[in-house]
Amino acid sequence: MKDDIAILGAGLVGSLLGIYLAQKNKYNVSIYERRPDMRLMQGSAGRSINLALSDRGIKALEDVGIMEDVKNICIPMHGRQIHNADGTQTYQAYGKEGQYINSVSRGELNKKLMDLAEAHGVEIFFEKKCEDINWKNNEVHFSGNNNMETISPDLIFGSDGAYAASRLSYQLNHDRFEYHQTFIDYGYKELTIPAGENGSFLIEKNALHIWPRGNYMLIALPNIDGSFTCTLFFPYSGDPSFESLDSKKKVDSFFKNEFADAYKLMPGITEDFFNNPTASLVTVKCFPWTHEDKFSLIGDAAHAMVPFFGQGMNCGFEDCLVLNQLWEAHQGNWTEILPKFQESRKPDADAISDLALANFTEMRDKVADEKFLAQKKIEAAFSTAYPEQWTPAYSMVTFRPDMRYSEALNKGMAQQKIMDSIMSAERDTSWEWNETTEAKMKAALQ
Amino acid sequence: MKDDIAILGAGLVGSLLGIYLAQKNKYNVSIYERRPDMRLMQGSAGRSINLALSDRGIKALEDVGIMEDVKNICIPMHGRQIHNADGTQTYQAYGKEGQYINSVSRGELNKKLMDLAEAHGVEIFFEKKCEDINWKNNEVHFSGNNNMETISPDLIFGSDGAYAASRLSYQLNHDRFEYHQTFIDYGYKELTIPAGENGSFLIEKNALHIWPRGNYMLIALPNIDGSFTCTLFFPYSGDPSFESLDSKKKVDSFFKNEFADAYKLMPGITEDFFNNPTASLVTVKCFPWTHEDKFSLIGDAAHAMVPFFGQGMNCGFEDCLVLNQLWEAHQGNWTEILPKFQESRKPDADAISDLALANFTEMRDKVADEKFLAQKKIEAAFSTAYPEQWTPAYSMVTFRPDMRYSEALNKGMAQQKIMDSIMSAERDTSWEWNETTEAKMKAALQ
Repeated sequence: MKDDIAILGAGLVGSLLGIYLAQKNKYNVSIYERRPDMRLMQGSAGRSINLALSDRGIKALEDVGIMEDVKNICIPMHGRQIHNADGTQTYQAYGKEGQYINSVSRGELNKKLMDLAEAHGVEIFFEKKCEDINWKNNEVHFSGNNNMETISPDLIFGSDGAYAASRLSYQLNHDRFEYHQTFIDYGYKELTIPAGENGSFLIEKNALHIWPRGNYMLIALPNIDGSFTCTLFFPYSGDPSFESLDSKKKVDSFFKNEFADAYKLMPGITEDFFNNPTASLVTVKCFPWTHEDKFSLIGDAAHAMVPFFGQGMNCGFEDCLVLNQLWEAHQGNWTEILPKFQESRKPDADAISDLALANFTEMRDKVADEKFLAQKKIEAAFSTAYPEQWTPAYSMVTFRPDMRYSEALNKGMAQQKIMDSIMSAERDTSWEWNETTEAKMKAALQ
Repeated sequence: MKDDIAILGAGLVGSLLGIYLAQKNKYNVSIYERRPDMRLMQGSAGRSINLALSDRGIKALEDVGIMEDVKNICIPMHGRQIHNADGTQTYQAYGKEGQYINSVSRGELNKKLMDLAEAHGVEIFFEKKCEDINWKNNEVHFSGNNNMETISPDLIFGSDGAYAASRLSYQLNHDRFEYHQTFIDYGYKELTIPAGENGSFLIEKNALHIWPRGNYMLIALPNIDGSFTCTLFFPYSGDPSFESLDSKKKVDSFFKNEFADAYKLMPGITEDFFNNPTASLVTVKCFPWTHEDKFSLIGDAAHAMVPFFGQGMNCGFEDCLVLNQLWEAHQGNWTEILPKFQESRKPDADAISDLALANFTEMRDKVADEKFLAQKKIEAAFSTAYPEQWTPAYSMVTFRPDMRYSEALNKGMAQQKIMDSIMSAERDTSWEWNETTEAKMKAALQ
């Protein structure tokens, strides 16, 4: 008889995990989702950052043979298009020639993954809100559709997101559960640059656009219909802030002054600003993730992070990949797999969470800074000359799925120390790629 | 018409807060307690560290005129009696001549405070388990006694402890709630040294006894009946640990070897060890504590800490004192009082939480260390010679209620830096109080 596996949450990670587990042909896999089936709904939630699918996520999709299906809703972004305050623009490639990340709509990708999960034999139940888990009997209690329901699977995965009900039940019923939720002083709001005539792109299609303004920023990612999903990351209070921009007039004049080129392309800016919700940005760290051989948190439920490294989904997909590798290594013995899964993934999840927080400063402030840009150029040149010895931190995280996040963090910090020393010298003598810089960097790496 | 104030939790802080508020003669004050009335029950919970009531707590009790009532259940402890592994004993005074802390039973003190609260006109309702708070209507929903009940007070205080239901409801219903719960790798277990003949004390009555053993420790505090409440602070795993001591034989031989003098006075050690629960040690930090002019967390619910500085209760009592000072300053205007309360107390609660964690190392390890003892002597001598310029950190926290915890933490860290430098010198030349040491310390303080 096949074991029953219940996955809580039909989001990106839950759906992909369903596909992974269904492919084993050993389990009855069911997904229980709190919301109605988004495939039957019109319109979007208006509150979801466009995603950047990159190599770690792609590897996990390839591993289970579905990347081809996903490819046609992806738009490659080869670098950052920086819109400076003075109206000039600069461009920073993300990596080497041919390296890119992919803009993809969260909704479209989620729908596709749900379709694929069902095609693999996974059953998805909607409007099942997890109210509680009975940890002794391994029962999950759902409310929804006006009645209570209880299931008793053999194994439960909590992939129910940053505010996971399964994690809350764990917190309330297990002693010594480490739990940390922390917010940054910034919220975000989704805005839109509509498509041009005949679905044309009104700004460069194959780039992630950033309007860095020191204490805040606007970003834009392309959609396949020619529009761009823009997100304003903005302080909750102070001047300017979500609090201070309290009238359509103020919003209009703020965007006109601060994001002049974007403003011209956003005819609905004041309506969007007041109609769309302001959402908060949480980091969640917790431990343990698992309970015996019966339960594990996975994805955002285990490690919610801020979106500034574009790795939240990629990390969750990599969770599935790592879990699958452990499944293969331990031949489906969950008693061994689950403890190893949390031991292995916890330091990597912590690392990418910390990197994501740090990257906010980089995106909203440093990318507009001459010194920072000079450093990036030096690193890129050194990396090209000595690819074995130096990979820029962003590339290690984004384009090196063979390297653990924790390793990327450690190497990145060591490299930053070297660059701090290089860049602390007088500008004219060293802020560029030359023999002296090269010698210094080589010496520092000894 | 008098406003209704509801206090959740009839613990030490909730009961004292009730007295403070009832004395205003402006409010109907009710306390809602989850458990049955402990005054009607036999025996103790077997899971409560004896408390050390010190100057901050005393000041709060005096301020409301009830210290006289509490005094007769207190036993003064003038210092630490250290029981070394080699069988020798050393004694460290806590402060100057005449300074002491007080051993008091949590249960006895709680009962007394409940009696006093009722005598002040506070009504206490038992077996009212807070299930949820409706933050829009300011309603509290209770279960218990087989039915649900709802109250709609004007103001609610959440003094429902380290695992507060009110705080959980806050966490689940407010965006951007900072929340951190973290545990140390040690648990604790309560044990007993019974009284001698005719209620005599079998070890020194007026001291807090410590058996420091590096990675773990046993402590004992006197009770008015001649017994001592002992607490073993011990690793959960490793060797030795709660995990490794898995038989009566192992426990017996462990205590015999490690705590030889105590072992002789603990005839029930093996029974106690397996009958009494192992409890965990949590630190909780959160923010905000308040909601408009309608709600505030207070005491452990706002800032649970580990017990190693003996300040958990004292800090909670000081919360009441500070709240009362703000009440006086703002003439009962809660719209001003509550925001000022959390702003003022949060840094102090954080400071004493951090100090409490740090003090565990001191108690279980350093108090047995020659260098540490030498440092304490030097500090005491300097403090006696120059009382205006130097108060040892322990004394600032314990005997200086005029000084904020955060100030004590900062001054303590600055002083520690000076002592590190003094103690880093060769032993023979400087590990004692002499003219050179005095000159060095005076110079460092310039």
